[in-house]
Amino acid sequence: MQLGRVIGTVVATVKYDGLEGIKLLIVQPLDRHQEPEGRPVVAADGVHMAGPGELIYFVGSREAAQALPETFVPVDHAIVGIVDATEELATGGA
Amino acid sequence: MQLGRVIGTVVATVKYDGLEGIKLLIVQPLDRHQEPEGRPVVAADGVHMAGPGELIYFVGSREAAQALPETFVPVDHAIVGIVDATEELATGGA
Amino acid sequence: MQLGRVIGTVVATVKYDGLEGIKLLIVQPLDRHQEPEGRPVVAADGVHMAGPGELIYFVGSREAAQALPETFVPVDHAIVGIVDATEELATGGA
Amino acid sequence: MQLGRVIGTVVATVKYDGLEGIKLLIVQPLDRHQEPEGRPVVAADGVHMAGPGELIYFVGSREAAQALPETFVPVDHAIVGIVDATEELATGGA
Amino acid sequence: MQLGRVIGTVVATVKYDGLEGIKLLIVQPLDRHQEPEGRPVVAADGVHMAGPGELIYFVGSREAAQALPETFVPVDHAIVGIVDATEELATGGA
Repeated sequence: MQLGRVIGTVVATVKYDGLEGIKLLIVQPLDRHQEPEGRPVVAADGVHMAGPGELIYFVGSREAAQALPETFVPVDHAIVGIVDATEELATGGA
Repeated sequence: MQLGRVIGTVVATVKYDGLEGIKLLIVQPLDRHQEPEGRPVVAADGVHMAGPGELIYFVGSREAAQALPETFVPVDHAIVGIVDATEELATGGA
Repeated sequence: MQLGRVIGTVVATVKYDGLEGIKLLIVQPLDRHQEPEGRPVVAADGVHMAGPGELIYFVGSREAAQALPETFVPVDHAIVGIVDATEELATGGA
Repeated sequence: MQLGRVIGTVVATVKYDGLEGIKLLIVQPLDRHQEPEGRPVVAADGVHMAGPGELIYFVGSREAAQALPETFVPVDHAIVGIVDATEELATGGA
Repeated sequence: MQLGRVIGTVVATVKYDGLEGIKLLIVQPLDRHQEPEGRPVVAADGVHMAGPGELIYFVGSREAAQALPETFVPVDHAIVGIVDATEELATGGA
Protein backbone atom coordinates (compact mmCIF):
# COMPACT_ATOMS: atom_id res chain seq x y z
CA MET A 1 0.00 0.00 0.00
CA GLN A 2 1.03 3.61 -0.24
CA LEU A 3 0.29 6.71 1.78
CA GLY A 4 -1.80 9.36 0.08
CA ARG A 5 -4.06 12.29 0.67
CA VAL A 6 -7.58 12.71 -0.71
CA ILE A 7 -7.53 15.82 -2.90
CA GLY A 8 -10.75 15.61 -4.89
CA THR A 9 -13.55 13.66 -6.48
CA VAL A 10 -14.33 12.59 -10.02
CA VAL A 11 -17.71 13.25 -11.61
CA ALA A 12 -18.42 10.98 -14.57
CA THR A 13 -21.70 10.32 -16.35
CA VAL A 14 -20.31 7.94 -18.94
CA LYS A 15 -18.51 5.04 -17.33
CA TYR A 16 -18.08 1.31 -17.51
CA ASP A 17 -21.26 -0.38 -16.26
CA GLY A 18 -19.60 -2.26 -13.43
CA LEU A 19 -18.44 0.99 -11.87
CA GLU A 20 -21.94 2.30 -11.03
CA GLY A 21 -22.22 3.05 -7.34
CA ILE A 22 -18.49 3.03 -6.63
CA LYS A 23 -17.28 6.32 -5.17
CA LEU A 24 -14.10 7.49 -6.86
CA LEU A 25 -11.68 9.86 -5.16
CA ILE A 26 -8.56 11.58 -6.44
CA VAL A 27 -5.61 10.63 -4.24
CA GLN A 28 -2.20 12.26 -4.23
CA PRO A 29 0.62 9.84 -3.28
CA LEU A 30 3.03 11.18 -0.66
CA ASP A 31 6.77 10.90 -0.10
CA ARG A 32 8.40 10.02 3.20
CA HIS A 33 7.90 13.54 4.49
CA GLN A 34 4.23 13.29 3.49
CA GLU A 35 4.71 15.80 0.71
CA PRO A 36 3.01 15.24 -2.70
CA GLU A 37 5.08 13.16 -5.11
CA GLY A 38 4.17 11.65 -8.44
CA ARG A 39 0.90 11.53 -10.36
CA PRO A 40 -2.42 11.40 -8.51
CA VAL A 41 -4.52 8.27 -8.87
CA VAL A 42 -8.26 7.75 -9.03
CA ALA A 43 -9.13 5.29 -6.28
CA ALA A 44 -12.30 3.56 -5.16
CA ASP A 45 -13.24 4.24 -1.54
CA GLY A 46 -13.02 0.82 0.12
CA VAL A 47 -13.72 2.12 3.62
CA HIS A 48 -16.76 4.27 2.73
CA MET A 49 -15.58 7.01 5.05
CA ALA A 50 -12.65 8.74 3.40
CA GLY A 51 -13.11 12.50 3.58
CA PRO A 52 -11.47 15.52 2.01
CA GLY A 53 -7.88 16.18 2.91
CA GLU A 54 -7.54 12.98 4.92
CA LEU A 55 -4.37 10.94 5.11
CA ILE A 56 -5.13 7.45 3.86
CA TYR A 57 -3.37 4.38 2.52
CA PHE A 58 -4.40 2.76 -0.71
CA VAL A 59 -3.74 -0.51 -2.43
CA GLY A 60 -2.91 -0.90 -6.10
CA SER A 61 -3.06 -3.37 -8.95
CA ARG A 62 -5.02 -6.63 -8.75
CA GLU A 63 -5.54 -6.37 -5.02
CA ALA A 64 -7.65 -3.22 -5.20
CA ALA A 65 -10.76 -5.05 -6.35
CA GLN A 66 -10.52 -7.27 -3.26
CA ALA A 67 -11.60 -4.26 -1.25
CA LEU A 68 -14.89 -3.93 -3.12
CA PRO A 69 -18.17 -5.87 -2.79
CA GLU A 70 -17.88 -7.09 -6.39
CA THR A 71 -14.32 -8.19 -7.17
CA PHE A 72 -14.58 -8.60 -10.96
CA VAL A 73 -14.51 -4.90 -11.70
CA PRO A 74 -11.93 -2.83 -13.57
CA VAL A 75 -10.56 -1.02 -10.51
CA ASP A 76 -6.83 -0.89 -9.81
CA HIS A 77 -6.57 1.44 -6.81
CA ALA A 78 -8.65 1.41 -3.62
CA ILE A 79 -8.45 3.23 -0.30
CA VAL A 80 -8.30 0.60 2.46
CA GLY A 81 -7.52 2.61 5.58
CA ILE A 82 -7.66 6.06 7.12
CA VAL A 83 -4.47 6.95 8.98
CA ASP A 84 -4.81 8.23 12.54
CA ALA A 85 -1.08 8.61 12.95
CA THR A 86 2.23 7.39 11.62
CA GLU A 87 5.00 6.65 14.08
CA GLU A 88 8.66 6.83 13.30
CA LEU A 89 10.26 3.84 14.95
CA ALA A 90 13.35 4.33 17.02
CA THR A 91 16.27 2.50 15.42
CA GLY A 92 17.86 -0.08 17.68
CA GLY A 93 14.83 -0.94 19.80
CA ALA A 94 12.30 -3.60 18.83
CA MET B 1 -7.19 4.43 -12.13
CA GLN B 2 -5.41 7.44 -13.52
CA LEU B 3 -6.54 10.60 -15.23
CA GLY B 4 -5.58 10.98 -18.87
CA ARG B 5 -6.44 12.70 -22.08
CA VAL B 6 -7.13 11.00 -25.42
CA ILE B 7 -4.48 12.25 -27.86
CA GLY B 8 -4.69 9.87 -30.79
CA THR B 9 -5.51 6.50 -32.29
CA VAL B 10 -3.43 3.54 -33.37
CA VAL B 11 -3.81 1.97 -36.81
CA ALA B 12 -2.48 -1.57 -36.96
CA THR B 13 -3.01 -4.22 -39.63
CA VAL B 14 -0.89 -6.89 -38.02
CA LYS B 15 -2.01 -7.62 -34.48
CA TYR B 16 -2.68 -10.41 -32.04
CA ASP B 17 -5.86 -12.22 -33.09
CA GLY B 18 -7.77 -11.58 -29.88
CA LEU B 19 -7.45 -7.83 -30.38
CA GLU B 20 -9.63 -7.67 -33.51
CA GLY B 21 -12.49 -5.26 -33.02
CA ILE B 22 -11.05 -3.55 -29.96
CA LYS B 23 -10.63 0.19 -30.47
CA LEU B 24 -7.23 1.38 -29.28
CA LEU B 25 -6.60 4.98 -28.28
CA ILE B 26 -3.41 6.79 -27.29
CA VAL B 27 -3.85 8.28 -23.83
CA GLN B 28 -1.55 10.79 -22.18
CA PRO B 29 -1.46 10.47 -18.36
CA LEU B 30 -1.87 13.76 -16.48
CA ASP B 31 -0.38 15.20 -13.31
CA ARG B 32 -2.39 16.86 -10.55
CA HIS B 33 -2.68 20.05 -12.55
CA GLN B 34 -3.93 17.99 -15.50
CA GLU B 35 -0.75 18.62 -17.44
CA PRO B 36 0.89 15.80 -19.47
CA GLU B 37 3.33 13.70 -17.44
CA GLY B 38 5.06 10.46 -18.30
CA ARG B 39 4.78 8.18 -21.31
CA PRO B 40 1.49 7.81 -23.18
CA VAL B 41 -0.24 4.44 -23.08
CA VAL B 42 -2.28 2.59 -25.67
CA ALA B 43 -5.64 1.83 -24.06
CA ALA B 44 -8.73 -0.09 -25.11
CA ASP B 45 -11.91 1.98 -25.08
CA GLY B 46 -14.07 0.31 -22.44
CA VAL B 47 -16.86 2.89 -22.62
CA HIS B 48 -17.19 2.95 -26.44
CA MET B 49 -17.62 6.70 -26.41
CA ALA B 50 -14.26 8.24 -25.68
CA GLY B 51 -13.59 11.05 -28.15
CA PRO B 52 -10.60 13.15 -29.12
CA GLY B 53 -9.16 15.44 -26.52
CA GLU B 54 -11.48 14.19 -23.80
CA LEU B 55 -10.50 13.88 -20.17
CA ILE B 56 -10.93 10.26 -19.12
CA TYR B 57 -9.77 7.86 -16.44
CA PHE B 58 -8.23 4.54 -17.29
CA VAL B 59 -7.43 1.37 -15.43
CA GLY B 60 -4.17 -0.53 -15.74
CA SER B 61 -2.68 -3.99 -15.32
CA ARG B 62 -4.82 -7.11 -14.86
CA GLU B 63 -8.00 -5.15 -14.26
CA ALA B 64 -8.10 -3.60 -17.72
CA ALA B 65 -9.38 -6.75 -19.38
CA GLN B 66 -12.34 -6.76 -16.97
CA ALA B 67 -13.67 -3.78 -18.90
CA LEU B 68 -13.86 -5.71 -22.16
CA PRO B 69 -16.45 -8.24 -23.42
CA GLU B 70 -13.77 -10.94 -23.61
CA THR B 71 -11.54 -10.90 -20.52
CA PHE B 72 -8.79 -13.30 -21.66
CA VAL B 73 -7.12 -10.83 -23.96
CA PRO B 74 -3.65 -9.26 -23.79
CA VAL B 75 -4.83 -5.78 -22.84
CA ASP B 76 -3.34 -3.93 -19.87
CA HIS B 77 -4.93 -0.47 -20.07
CA ALA B 78 -8.59 0.42 -20.63
CA ILE B 79 -10.59 3.62 -20.51
CA VAL B 80 -13.43 3.10 -18.02
CA GLY B 81 -14.93 6.57 -17.63
CA ILE B 82 -15.26 9.98 -19.24
CA VAL B 83 -14.76 12.79 -16.76
CA ASP B 84 -17.39 15.53 -16.65
CA ALA B 85 -15.60 17.39 -13.90
CA THR B 86 -13.14 16.97 -11.10
CA GLU B 87 -13.82 18.71 -7.80
CA GLU B 88 -11.20 19.81 -5.36
CA LEU B 89 -12.47 18.94 -1.92
CA ALA B 90 -12.33 21.54 0.81
CA THR B 91 -9.95 20.39 3.56
CA GLY B 92 -11.53 20.11 6.98
CA GLY B 93 -15.11 19.40 5.92
CA ALA B 94 -16.47 15.94 5.20
CA MET C 1 -0.19 -1.21 -23.94
CA GLN C 2 2.71 1.05 -24.76
CA LEU C 3 4.34 2.17 -27.96
CA GLY C 4 7.86 0.92 -28.60
CA ARG C 5 10.43 0.24 -31.24
CA VAL C 6 12.23 -3.07 -31.80
CA ILE C 7 15.93 -2.39 -31.29
CA GLY C 8 17.49 -5.84 -31.00
CA THR C 9 17.28 -9.50 -30.12
CA VAL C 10 18.42 -11.57 -27.18
CA VAL C 11 20.52 -14.70 -27.64
CA ALA C 12 20.35 -17.01 -24.63
CA THR C 13 21.44 -20.63 -24.33
CA VAL C 14 20.54 -21.06 -20.68
CA LYS C 15 16.94 -20.18 -20.03
CA TYR C 16 13.86 -21.31 -18.16
CA ASP C 17 12.47 -24.43 -19.86
CA GLY C 18 9.08 -22.96 -20.67
CA LEU C 19 10.70 -20.23 -22.75
CA GLU C 20 12.05 -22.56 -25.46
CA GLY C 21 10.78 -21.51 -28.85
CA ILE C 22 9.62 -18.06 -27.80
CA LYS C 23 11.33 -15.31 -29.79
CA LEU C 24 12.53 -12.51 -27.54
CA LEU C 25 13.09 -8.98 -28.83
CA ILE C 26 14.52 -5.92 -27.16
CA VAL C 27 11.97 -3.11 -27.27
CA GLN C 28 12.61 0.54 -26.46
CA PRO C 29 9.54 2.31 -25.02
CA LEU C 30 8.75 5.67 -26.64
CA ASP C 31 7.45 8.99 -25.37
CA ARG C 32 4.63 10.95 -26.98
CA HIS C 33 6.95 12.26 -29.65
CA GLN C 34 8.05 8.67 -30.33
CA GLU C 35 11.48 9.32 -28.90
CA PRO C 36 13.18 6.70 -26.67
CA GLU C 37 12.30 7.04 -22.99
CA GLY C 38 12.98 4.74 -20.08
CA ARG C 39 14.57 1.32 -19.90
CA PRO C 40 14.20 -1.15 -22.76
CA VAL C 41 12.23 -4.33 -22.11
CA VAL C 42 12.67 -7.87 -23.39
CA ALA C 43 9.36 -8.85 -24.99
CA ALA C 44 7.99 -12.01 -26.55
CA ASP C 45 6.84 -11.59 -30.13
CA GLY C 46 3.11 -12.30 -29.99
CA VAL C 47 2.47 -11.45 -33.64
CA HIS C 48 5.33 -13.51 -35.10
CA MET C 49 6.14 -10.79 -37.59
CA ALA C 50 7.82 -7.95 -35.70
CA GLY C 51 10.92 -6.85 -37.56
CA PRO C 52 13.91 -4.66 -36.82
CA GLY C 53 13.24 -0.98 -36.27
CA GLU C 54 9.49 -1.39 -36.44
CA LEU C 55 7.05 0.64 -34.40
CA ILE C 56 4.97 -1.73 -32.30
CA TYR C 57 2.79 -1.75 -29.21
CA PHE C 58 3.37 -4.17 -26.40
CA VAL C 59 1.43 -5.33 -23.39
CA GLY C 60 2.89 -5.76 -19.93
CA SER C 61 2.39 -7.66 -16.70
CA ARG C 62 -0.02 -10.59 -16.36
CA GLU C 63 -1.65 -9.95 -19.71
CA ALA C 64 1.46 -10.60 -21.76
CA ALA C 65 1.22 -14.36 -21.43
CA GLN C 66 -2.28 -14.19 -22.91
CA ALA C 67 -0.64 -13.42 -26.23
CA LEU C 68 1.30 -16.68 -26.27
CA PRO C 69 0.20 -20.23 -27.15
CA GLU C 70 1.03 -21.41 -23.63
CA THR C 71 -0.20 -18.94 -21.01
CA PHE C 72 1.50 -20.36 -17.91
CA VAL C 73 4.94 -19.05 -18.77
CA PRO C 74 7.10 -16.48 -17.00
CA VAL C 75 6.70 -13.74 -19.62
CA ASP C 76 5.66 -10.22 -18.63
CA HIS C 77 5.94 -8.26 -21.88
CA ALA C 78 4.65 -9.23 -25.33
CA ILE C 79 4.38 -7.44 -28.67
CA VAL C 80 0.72 -7.58 -29.73
CA GLY C 81 0.58 -5.27 -32.74
CA ILE C 82 2.65 -3.62 -35.45
CA VAL C 83 1.74 0.02 -35.92
CA ASP C 84 1.00 1.22 -39.45
CA ALA C 85 0.31 4.74 -38.32
CA THR C 86 -0.69 6.79 -35.34
CA GLU C 87 -3.17 9.60 -35.81
CA GLU C 88 -3.40 12.68 -33.69
CA LEU C 89 -7.06 13.33 -33.12
CA ALA C 90 -8.42 16.79 -33.65
CA THR C 91 -9.68 18.21 -30.36
CA GLY C 92 -13.33 19.18 -30.34
CA GLY C 93 -14.62 16.76 -32.96
CA ALA C 94 -15.68 13.22 -32.18
CA MET D 1 11.48 -8.33 -4.27
CA GLN D 2 13.16 -5.10 -3.28
CA LEU D 3 15.44 -4.10 -0.46
CA GLY D 4 14.01 -1.67 2.07
CA ARG D 5 14.31 -0.40 5.60
CA VAL D 6 11.51 -0.27 8.16
CA ILE D 7 11.04 3.39 9.08
CA GLY D 8 7.72 3.46 10.92
CA THR D 9 4.28 2.08 11.63
CA VAL D 10 0.79 3.06 10.60
CA VAL D 11 -1.98 3.52 13.14
CA ALA D 12 -5.44 3.27 11.59
CA THR D 13 -8.80 2.86 13.31
CA VAL D 14 -10.92 2.90 10.18
CA LYS D 15 -9.79 0.27 7.73
CA TYR D 16 -11.06 -2.37 5.36
CA ASP D 17 -12.44 -5.29 7.40
CA GLY D 18 -10.08 -7.89 5.97
CA LEU D 19 -7.09 -5.95 7.23
CA GLU D 20 -7.85 -6.40 10.96
CA GLY D 21 -4.92 -8.02 12.71
CA ILE D 22 -2.40 -7.40 9.96
CA LYS D 23 0.57 -5.35 11.17
CA LEU D 24 1.44 -2.59 8.73
CA LEU D 25 4.90 -1.06 8.56
CA ILE D 26 6.24 1.87 6.58
CA VAL D 27 9.14 0.69 4.43
CA GLN D 28 11.58 2.92 2.56
CA PRO D 29 12.91 1.30 -0.66
CA LEU D 30 16.70 1.51 -1.04
CA ASP D 31 19.02 2.02 -4.00
CA ARG D 32 22.09 -0.10 -4.71
CA HIS D 33 24.09 1.74 -2.08
CA GLN D 34 21.27 1.09 0.38
CA GLU D 35 20.34 4.75 0.45
CA PRO D 36 16.64 5.80 0.46
CA GLU D 37 15.16 6.15 -3.03
CA GLY D 38 11.59 6.64 -4.12
CA ARG D 39 8.34 6.74 -2.18
CA PRO D 40 7.90 4.65 0.96
CA VAL D 41 5.35 1.84 0.88
CA VAL D 42 3.01 0.48 3.54
CA ALA D 43 3.75 -3.23 3.80
CA ALA D 44 2.25 -6.10 5.75
CA ASP D 45 4.74 -7.91 7.98
CA GLY D 46 4.85 -11.41 6.55
CA VAL D 47 7.61 -12.62 8.88
CA HIS D 48 6.07 -11.31 12.14
CA MET D 49 9.48 -10.21 13.35
CA ALA D 50 10.47 -7.11 11.40
CA GLY D 51 11.72 -4.46 13.78
CA PRO D 52 12.52 -0.77 13.58
CA GLY D 53 15.38 0.24 11.33
CA GLU D 54 15.91 -3.27 10.04
CA LEU D 55 17.01 -4.06 6.51
CA ILE D 56 14.38 -6.26 4.90
CA TYR D 57 13.16 -7.34 1.48
CA PHE D 58 9.57 -7.04 0.45
CA VAL D 59 7.43 -8.39 -2.33
CA GLY D 60 4.95 -6.32 -4.33
CA SER D 61 1.78 -6.64 -6.36
CA ARG D 62 -0.32 -9.82 -6.45
CA GLU D 63 2.33 -11.90 -4.75
CA ALA D 64 2.23 -9.97 -1.49
CA ALA D 65 -0.99 -11.59 -0.32
CA GLN D 66 0.67 -15.00 -0.71
CA ALA D 67 2.72 -14.14 2.35
CA LEU D 68 -0.35 -13.75 4.55
CA PRO D 69 -2.57 -16.36 6.24
CA GLU D 70 -5.60 -15.16 4.24
CA THR D 71 -4.68 -14.53 0.61
CA PHE D 72 -7.84 -12.76 -0.58
CA VAL D 73 -7.01 -9.46 1.07
CA PRO D 74 -6.28 -6.07 -0.48
CA VAL D 75 -2.56 -6.05 0.34
CA ASP D 76 0.03 -5.32 -2.34
CA HIS D 77 3.30 -5.17 -0.40
CA ALA D 78 4.60 -7.60 2.21
CA ILE D 79 7.89 -8.04 4.05
CA VAL D 80 9.08 -11.59 3.40
CA GLY D 81 12.61 -11.62 4.80
CA ILE D 82 14.96 -9.88 7.21
CA VAL D 83 18.40 -9.38 5.70
CA ASP D 84 21.40 -10.51 7.74
CA ALA D 85 23.86 -9.42 5.10
CA THR D 86 24.18 -8.68 1.42
CA GLU D 87 27.26 -9.88 -0.40
CA GLU D 88 28.70 -8.27 -3.46
CA LEU D 89 29.72 -11.05 -5.76
CA ALA D 90 33.15 -11.01 -7.33
CA THR D 91 32.82 -10.68 -11.09
CA GLY D 92 34.43 -13.55 -12.96
CA GLY D 93 34.10 -16.21 -10.27
CA ALA D 94 31.07 -18.45 -9.87
CA MET E 1 11.35 -9.08 -19.07
CA GLN E 2 14.19 -6.70 -18.43
CA LEU E 3 17.92 -6.91 -18.83
CA GLY E 4 19.96 -6.89 -15.64
CA ARG E 5 23.27 -7.84 -14.12
CA VAL E 6 23.75 -10.01 -11.03
CA ILE E 7 25.53 -7.86 -8.45
CA GLY E 8 25.15 -9.77 -5.20
CA THR E 9 23.34 -12.21 -2.97
CA VAL E 10 21.04 -11.85 0.00
CA VAL E 11 21.64 -13.73 3.24
CA ALA E 12 18.53 -14.00 5.38
CA THR E 13 17.86 -16.22 8.37
CA VAL E 14 14.36 -14.98 9.07
CA LYS E 15 12.14 -15.29 6.04
CA TYR E 16 8.68 -16.33 4.95
CA ASP E 17 8.40 -20.12 5.17
CA GLY E 18 7.63 -20.66 1.49
CA LEU E 19 10.92 -19.06 0.52
CA GLU E 20 13.16 -21.75 2.04
CA GLY E 21 15.48 -23.17 -0.58
CA ILE E 22 14.98 -20.41 -3.12
CA LYS E 23 18.25 -18.71 -4.04
CA LEU E 24 17.89 -14.94 -4.05
CA LEU E 25 20.21 -12.70 -6.05
CA ILE E 26 20.50 -8.93 -6.22
CA VAL E 27 20.00 -7.78 -9.80
CA GLN E 28 20.72 -4.32 -11.16
CA PRO E 29 18.41 -3.35 -14.07
CA LEU E 30 20.22 -1.90 -17.09
CA ASP E 31 19.44 0.83 -19.60
CA ARG E 32 19.75 0.46 -23.36
CA HIS E 33 23.51 0.93 -23.17
CA GLN E 34 23.62 -1.77 -20.50
CA GLU E 35 24.51 0.75 -17.82
CA PRO E 36 22.91 0.52 -14.34
CA GLU E 37 19.60 2.37 -14.06
CA GLY E 38 17.02 2.38 -11.31
CA ARG E 39 16.79 0.43 -8.08
CA PRO E 40 18.17 -3.10 -7.83
CA VAL E 41 15.70 -5.93 -7.30
CA VAL E 42 15.95 -9.15 -5.31
CA ALA E 43 15.18 -11.96 -7.75
CA ALA E 44 14.79 -15.72 -7.46
CA ASP E 45 17.14 -17.68 -9.68
CA GLY E 46 14.82 -19.53 -12.06
CA VAL E 47 17.62 -21.01 -14.16
CA HIS E 48 19.73 -22.30 -11.25
CA MET E 49 22.91 -21.20 -12.98
CA ALA E 50 23.10 -17.42 -12.75
CA GLY E 51 26.57 -16.39 -11.64
CA PRO E 52 28.20 -13.21 -10.41
CA GLY E 53 28.43 -10.35 -12.85
CA GLU E 54 26.43 -12.15 -15.51
CA LEU E 55 24.06 -10.43 -17.88
CA ILE E 56 20.62 -11.93 -17.44
CA TYR E 57 16.97 -11.14 -18.12
CA PHE E 58 14.38 -11.33 -15.43
CA VAL E 59 10.61 -11.38 -15.28
CA GLY E 60 8.53 -9.34 -12.87
CA SER E 61 5.15 -9.28 -11.16
CA ARG E 62 2.79 -12.27 -11.17
CA GLU E 63 4.73 -14.12 -13.82
CA ALA E 64 7.86 -14.54 -11.71
CA ALA E 65 6.41 -17.35 -9.64
CA GLN E 66 5.74 -19.29 -12.85
CA ALA E 67 9.49 -19.81 -13.09
CA LEU E 68 9.65 -21.64 -9.76
CA PRO E 69 8.76 -25.23 -8.82
CA GLU E 70 6.07 -24.00 -6.42
CA THR E 71 4.03 -21.18 -7.96
CA PHE E 72 2.09 -20.02 -4.88
CA VAL E 73 5.01 -18.21 -3.31
CA PRO E 74 5.48 -14.49 -2.60
CA VAL E 75 8.11 -13.90 -5.28
CA ASP E 76 7.75 -11.08 -7.79
CA HIS E 77 11.03 -11.16 -9.71
CA ALA E 78 12.80 -14.18 -11.21
CA ILE E 79 15.80 -14.64 -13.48
CA VAL E 80 14.65 -16.67 -16.49
CA GLY E 81 17.61 -16.51 -18.87
CA ILE E 82 21.34 -15.89 -19.10
CA VAL E 83 22.25 -13.67 -22.04
CA ASP E 84 24.99 -14.88 -24.39
CA ALA E 85 24.71 -11.83 -26.58
CA THR E 86 22.36 -9.07 -27.60
CA GLU E 87 22.19 -8.09 -31.25
CA GLU E 88 21.26 -4.69 -32.51
CA LEU E 89 19.01 -5.27 -35.48
CA ALA E 90 19.68 -3.41 -38.69
CA THR E 91 16.74 -1.15 -39.49
CA GLY E 92 15.09 -1.95 -42.79
CA GLY E 93 16.04 -5.63 -43.04
CA ALA E 94 13.99 -8.40 -41.51
